[in-house]
Amino acid sequence: MQSVDATRDALLACARAPAQSEILPLLDIAHRVLARPLVARLDVPPHDNSAMDGYAVRSSELKPGVAFEVSQRLPAGSLPSPLLPASVARIFTGAMLPEGADAVVMQEHTSTLPDGRVMFDDVVRSGLNIRRRGEDITDGSSVLAGGLRLKPAHLGLAASVGVASLPVYTQLRVAVFFTGDELQEPGRPALPGHIYNANRYWLVPALRALGCEVLDLGIVPDRLADTRQLLRDAGQAADVVMTCGGVSVGEEDHVKAAVCAEGELQQWRVAIKPGKPLAFGRVGQADFIGLPGNPVAAWVGFIVLVRDFLRARQGEVLPRWQPQGWLPASFRWPRPDPRREEFLRVRVVPDGTSHVLHAYPQQGSAVLSSCVWSDGLARLQPGQVVEPGTLLPVYGWGAGV
Amino acid sequence: MQSVDATRDALLACARAPAQSEILPLLDIAHRVLARPLVARLDVPPHDNSAMDGYAVRSSELKPGVAFEVSQRLPAGSLPSPLLPASVARIFTGAMLPEGADAVVMQEHTSTLPDGRVMFDDVVRSGLNIRRRGEDITDGSSVLAGGLRLKPAHLGLAASVGVASLPVYTQLRVAVFFTGDELQEPGRPALPGHIYNANRYWLVPALRALGCEVLDLGIVPDRLADTRQLLRDAGQAADVVMTCGGVSVGEEDHVKAAVCAEGELQQWRVAIKPGKPLAFGRVGQADFIGLPGNPVAAWVGFIVLVRDFLRARQGEVLPRWQPQGWLPASFRWPRPDPRREEFLRVRVVPDGTSHVLHAYPQQGSAVLSSCVWSDGLARLQPGQVVEPGTLLPVYGWGAGV
Repeated sequence: MQSVDATRDALLACARAPAQSEILPLLDIAHRVLARPLVARLDVPPHDNSAMDGYAVRSSELKPGVAFEVSQRLPAGSLPSPLLPASVARIFTGAMLPEGADAVVMQEHTSTLPDGRVMFDDVVRSGLNIRRRGEDITDGSSVLAGGLRLKPAHLGLAASVGVASLPVYTQLRVAVFFTGDELQEPGRPALPGHIYNANRYWLVPALRALGCEVLDLGIVPDRLADTRQLLRDAGQAADVVMTCGGVSVGEEDHVKAAVCAEGELQQWRVAIKPGKPLAFGRVGQADFIGLPGNPVAAWVGFIVLVRDFLRARQGEVLPRWQPQGWLPASFRWPRPDPRREEFLRVRVVPDGTSHVLHAYPQQGSAVLSSCVWSDGLARLQPGQVVEPGTLLPVYGWGAGV
Repeated sequence: MQSVDATRDALLACARAPAQSEILPLLDIAHRVLARPLVARLDVPPHDNSAMDGYAVRSSELKPGVAFEVSQRLPAGSLPSPLLPASVARIFTGAMLPEGADAVVMQEHTSTLPDGRVMFDDVVRSGLNIRRRGEDITDGSSVLAGGLRLKPAHLGLAASVGVASLPVYTQLRVAVFFTGDELQEPGRPALPGHIYNANRYWLVPALRALGCEVLDLGIVPDRLADTRQLLRDAGQAADVVMTCGGVSVGEEDHVKAAVCAEGELQQWRVAIKPGKPLAFGRVGQADFIGLPGNPVAAWVGFIVLVRDFLRARQGEVLPRWQPQGWLPASFRWPRPDPRREEFLRVRVVPDGTSHVLHAYPQQGSAVLSSCVWSDGLARLQPGQVVEPGTLLPVYGWGAGV
């Protein structure tokens, strides 16, 4: 069997970024992947400006008890004149500092005479209440790295340097289908011996949340000719073809044979529980990924092995895969799998200023209650016995699922 | 000044759920809010079934060294006949157990004779390799709670109990506009004294990620008559009207006066840094929320105070607001604000099996680099001095931002 880490590495090594990118307006590219770095072409802020509502002054001229003329008024967005000698300027937050002024006094520290002149409570140091040109971003500096998944704050930052559109990789088209003659679509009557197709209803929205365009082909009858035709079509229309079910060693599965006939297939015996079996290959120009049919195994396989492949396949530069933290178990796990890493569905429960892990009682369950109940996965090494207090690495579900 | 907790409580007390809901197909309602609980109307699994590929047997009949006829073949999805005496059934994972069988033997623990009969290596206990009817969900049990934000796994679980559509609250319509004559849209030339409008480009996608329908009204000239007209229109078209800027005590701000004229306004002096000033009120039938114009203050005010109001306003039942964890600072913060809670932008950095907090060096920055760099906020009490090692509560940005 192949380890989880080795399987992830093998998948990521195959994940080439999209060849194409497109330039789109900021408000259309939330959660897309930036194709090239963004370099600032201006300073932010673009000029020295006031951090307060108050008065722009020459600090060297200021004396308590002396009244100053207000020689100009500067709301934000106005263009100042040079500050006249022995005068001050009324100024508002964000307004550009007039030439000659070197400090801003908060209005709360001043008093206005009946003739409109202003007196100051104290002397002030040069630079007080001034936001300096370029103190946030300097012209020529790197603002956003290529391969970044664009979150709202990134788009705000791009706007702050005057950029209205950015180059993003073209959307990944993922075709999905589901096999198994026992599968029934929800909303139809429950036939004896059948179960409802849960995988379609979490996989499609999870792929969309990843920024993929999904070609949802539904349930395919588990017959070789039908599956081959579908694979041919999907391999032409999509960048990645995914399926749930049909890739185990059971003799009723035809997906395996169909992929071998129409492309190439590697079946990996991954040392993971749940999450077996996983298949990877090619159909036409598309990558092929076969997830297990068991919903919990498909879910764990998707979260642990496949999701980061799809991210990298979209051009995203990924941080190192690592747990969000190590937390003590509150449970016992006395009979570990001797050969496979186990990913237990766990909930993170507050415990004073820290947290402990609770495990869903039915870890072997075939359906999704355990994933809905939990916050993520605790990772156990092969053969690792867990006692209350054992520190375990925790991987949260992550965004979008 | 009013505390952060009191402000959140006051906002949440005003956040009524939408009056209307609509029933929509599962694949159209990812990240929407469930309007009524979902109760299962069947058992999952719906019948005792095989957890393995192998042979369904009467455990009491089994004897090592005795060969059994294979009296039926049961792929998943097939309807079994009662098990004939002194025979076994070929069975595949997920297939319904035939009446009379009480265990499944893995095919790896059997051998097949040339005449097709099967011999078993061992005796087996009753119940072996059987997934029991209802072991995951029982008929009549609660599957999903009302007020739940529907994630992909929830949709999968709903499908697994045969449900094809669910009632969700109608989408919240949020009108947003931005004031300040110093604001310039990105993509246009940088005029002296102007800055680019960053807030629009993070707020609109953040609202969309929350599931809101956004009416984006762009930059509005900071004049009273224009602002009043816009508020009247927005108050009719939207459930919530939001703005950035124009609600401070500065005399150049007209939003405040316009809201007072067209509805009602509470200006809150919240003891938060950054994040001041915040305004809340009503315009027509809509709620009004005024965020600060400073992008970092607007961002922190949105994350800490406003986002959960919008969630509750969508009908979402919220968990208690609490930090994701307490982590030690790696920095000094020697001059805290004596009267306001401070929310420092921090990054969570691995440190052995735990993590430490790094603070962005420029906490006073007027633009968004600090938010892009950070993973979330560390919350300081008024007057709290931080030394390396001080444990601080950390609030991650959360999903979608």
